[in-house]
Amino acid sequence: KKQFAPHLYKPFSTTVYRAMLTTEMSEAEVSALRANKERLAIDLHESCKWGFGIRWGEGSTDTGMQRLALSEEDKSVRDWFIQTMKDLKCQITIDEMGNIFAVRPGRRTDVPATFIGSHLDTQPTGGRYDGILGVLSGVEAIKRMDELGLETEGGVGVVNWTNEEGARFPISMIASGVWAEFIPLSQAHELKEVPTVASLPTASSAPDTMKSALEKIGYLGSVPCSYKTTPMAAHFEVHIEQGPHLVSAGQRVGVVTAVQAYRWFRLNVIGRDTHTGTTAFEHRADALYAFAQMMVRAREVAASKGCLASVGIIEAKPGSVNTVPGTVSFSLDIRGPESALVVEVENQLRSDFDAIAAAEGAGIGKPCRVEWTLDFDSPAVKFHEDCIDCVQESAHAVVADEPVADTKSLVRTIMSGAGHDSVFTSKRVPTSMIFVPCKDGLSHHPEEFCSADDCATGASVILQAVVRYDRKRFT
Amino acid sequence: KKQFAPHLYKPFSTTVYRAMLTTEMSEAEVSALRANKERLAIDLHESCKWGFGIRWGEGSTDTGMQRLALSEEDKSVRDWFIQTMKDLKCQITIDEMGNIFAVRPGRRTDVPATFIGSHLDTQPTGGRYDGILGVLSGVEAIKRMDELGLETEGGVGVVNWTNEEGARFPISMIASGVWAEFIPLSQAHELKEVPTVASLPTASSAPDTMKSALEKIGYLGSVPCSYKTTPMAAHFEVHIEQGPHLVSAGQRVGVVTAVQAYRWFRLNVIGRDTHTGTTAFEHRADALYAFAQMMVRAREVAASKGCLASVGIIEAKPGSVNTVPGTVSFSLDIRGPESALVVEVENQLRSDFDAIAAAEGAGIGKPCRVEWTLDFDSPAVKFHEDCIDCVQESAHAVVADEPVADTKSLVRTIMSGAGHDSVFTSKRVPTSMIFVPCKDGLSHHPEEFCSADDCATGASVILQAVVRYDRKRFT
Ligand SMILES: NC(=O)NCCC(=O)O
Ligand SMILES: NC(=O)NCCC(=O)O
Repeated sequence: KKQFAPHLYKPFSTTVYRAMLTTEMSEAEVSALRANKERLAIDLHESCKWGFGIRWGEGSTDTGMQRLALSEEDKSVRDWFIQTMKDLKCQITIDEMGNIFAVRPGRRTDVPATFIGSHLDTQPTGGRYDGILGVLSGVEAIKRMDELGLETEGGVGVVNWTNEEGARFPISMIASGVWAEFIPLSQAHELKEVPTVASLPTASSAPDTMKSALEKIGYLGSVPCSYKTTPMAAHFEVHIEQGPHLVSAGQRVGVVTAVQAYRWFRLNVIGRDTHTGTTAFEHRADALYAFAQMMVRAREVAASKGCLASVGIIEAKPGSVNTVPGTVSFSLDIRGPESALVVEVENQLRSDFDAIAAAEGAGIGKPCRVEWTLDFDSPAVKFHEDCIDCVQESAHAVVADEPVADTKSLVRTIMSGAGHDSVFTSKRVPTSMIFVPCKDGLSHHPEEFCSADDCATGASVILQAVVRYDRKRFT
Repeated sequence: KKQFAPHLYKPFSTTVYRAMLTTEMSEAEVSALRANKERLAIDLHESCKWGFGIRWGEGSTDTGMQRLALSEEDKSVRDWFIQTMKDLKCQITIDEMGNIFAVRPGRRTDVPATFIGSHLDTQPTGGRYDGILGVLSGVEAIKRMDELGLETEGGVGVVNWTNEEGARFPISMIASGVWAEFIPLSQAHELKEVPTVASLPTASSAPDTMKSALEKIGYLGSVPCSYKTTPMAAHFEVHIEQGPHLVSAGQRVGVVTAVQAYRWFRLNVIGRDTHTGTTAFEHRADALYAFAQMMVRAREVAASKGCLASVGIIEAKPGSVNTVPGTVSFSLDIRGPESALVVEVENQLRSDFDAIAAAEGAGIGKPCRVEWTLDFDSPAVKFHEDCIDCVQESAHAVVADEPVADTKSLVRTIMSGAGHDSVFTSKRVPTSMIFVPCKDGLSHHPEEFCSADDCATGASVILQAVVRYDRKRFT
């Protein structure tokens, strides 16, 4: 068995010489694997050239991102990603949902690759790390493996999932959902974009469906979107926490063991348009006033059950200063640590909203009514022990660099508040995730920030995790 | 002095023979004046050919109206109005705000005409009577005067005021406001259209200003918009009540003595965009949640002072299901019977909204803040005794036809909840209004309805009122 001596190996990107088989590495050699912090930072911000968002500081990278799924900016970064992976001699697959799979082959070609995945799309007022860090950590892992001349038994892939955010097309993780065969392809293809996303250059033309948007940017692949057609051995994902736990405890890595449950609804409140100046309160069926009470109530009920309830989109019609809105549509996002709790909040709100609607307009005998549509249901998820173990071991190995006595305390297990494509991959293949801290726990905001150190920590952990998983599979 | 014998006189529309001088009519002759109900109904629905809104019944006229100010539909009805008035040998003036004045000359050319005015624009989900009845009652009055061969001392005019609704350009009565020199022409010309008015075919192009919209439809007149350039002797307006008082009491005519005060504001709540799934309530500065509490509070405060407070327009950004909105803009319309009460509500809400904003986000030390802009201030108005008297006498004369013992009880004095162009004319010339009942007191709704009888009552009253006013002026 060869010694682990990285300087002996020529980079894979220039030759195809691979000198170190992962299954033959010592535990110490695996634990010594690190991402290249500088290169990762350069690549990450390079990939943010497309879709600059709101500027919040003077520095060249002090902007947020506004790269809605399947926009022109998303097309550009996809093109860049594919070219980057082709340069690294990866094999590219694009499926019917525009998911891009780039595989660095292993020694064995009869087994699926272990994947590192996340997404390059962002919120309308998003940042530079949510999703982007995950994909770029994958790119860095491949570059580092090439550089070190590592050879895996199974291949190692990087996947960019389409529309993870659910910001433009209002079902999050929809493309991994189709891949996992939990969401029908037709439903996904027909899904319409949200008209209110402030930044969209929609306007005159009819709203795009996912399919038409995929076609427009040339990313409607021909390969079926399915875990059967594009199988994976496992799926790992590094992500900023998007919450305050790591950062406030000064911890460096979260070993994600679970993801909380959530449901997304679209609600319509139907009342009656009427004059604001001549209609006494008791003669109104004011759909917006009903909404206001509903939103206040939603927070109350959710809080009482340790859950969250949020409204992100609202539209009131007809939208005139002196007409009481007769129709209001809004999104409702309910989350909780357990699926049953989310359903409890939902049921309570269904009855409370009915009561609120019934009271508004009762005086005229034409009360408001409320309609619910469940757009998306993501039950709570527990990740796979094997993957969690790989992440845990890797995390402890990476934080061992830190100049503190008890480096173990820098790592914790954590539940994800946000959904991720790992939720859907976990339904078909062993999966887990790695969290790194972000400033103030802030995400879905232009000022979202993760230091180059923390980014590199995440990339180092995932690099080790895929190597460890490969070793687990083949030894 | 001649006997009042209408059948003796040839219609003015075919000859210019006028046989009866209003100043020479007996009181009984004036009291006998009536509009032609059938013709009024035909003309009114004819004028609704442009800008059909939402259909609510089977009948040919069972639709609402959607004729936003200075839209293509508004242009068409303006063209029709001008042609109609030219056919009646009226003199047409179009001013810089697109107001259209049509004058039937009197015997004397050295004095201004007495005007009947209202508006042909509608809400996005408006009805067939609000404003339209007022202008068409004017048309009918002229037709009837011609038919009867009436000759007035001063002229009688009909005016169509631009953008009374404030639905497309969010300052109501803006064009009479410019005419009265209470609103600067430049402010009005630069006023931008509301982007959220559901039905507007705005979209791709930049929002129109009033000036560009006037230019587009060819109604940017060259005559200065001012009571000095286009003077009036008085202004009368017939309108549906838009509220429930007349209809619920079974009364036929409201003699409008006053208009309640109102103020229109635009508010911005600025919080912080953040992730809905990972951000605990105490870490949020949720601008929409703050808004919801504000709207609930606004009704509470307004109700406690006998006032109204309403939100018609709301926009939350960035508008993504899983981003807590960091910015919310909304309109606030506060009304009350006295200007001071409106200011009281405003002041209370300014402090309450500050408190709500300060609490939301307090946990992260970056609370929401709220900004107010006063867009429009319409203090309470009292109409002119002379005009009120003319309306009162005319109303009693017209309802005398009704088959009830106490016809006096069919008429009441009333305060207007809505603003009308008469508010601004009253600042420069004697003014008053006539209300007729509408179904369920409903307005700013496609099903807004006023029976042909009630329409005719309004038109008969205004016909008599202008004759009476002419007599008051010149005898
Ligand atoms: N990570 C992330 O922001 N995903 C979007 C899906 C969600 O709303 O949780
Ligand atoms: N009459 C009417 O609806 N006018 C619009 C101005 C207002 O809002 O009161």
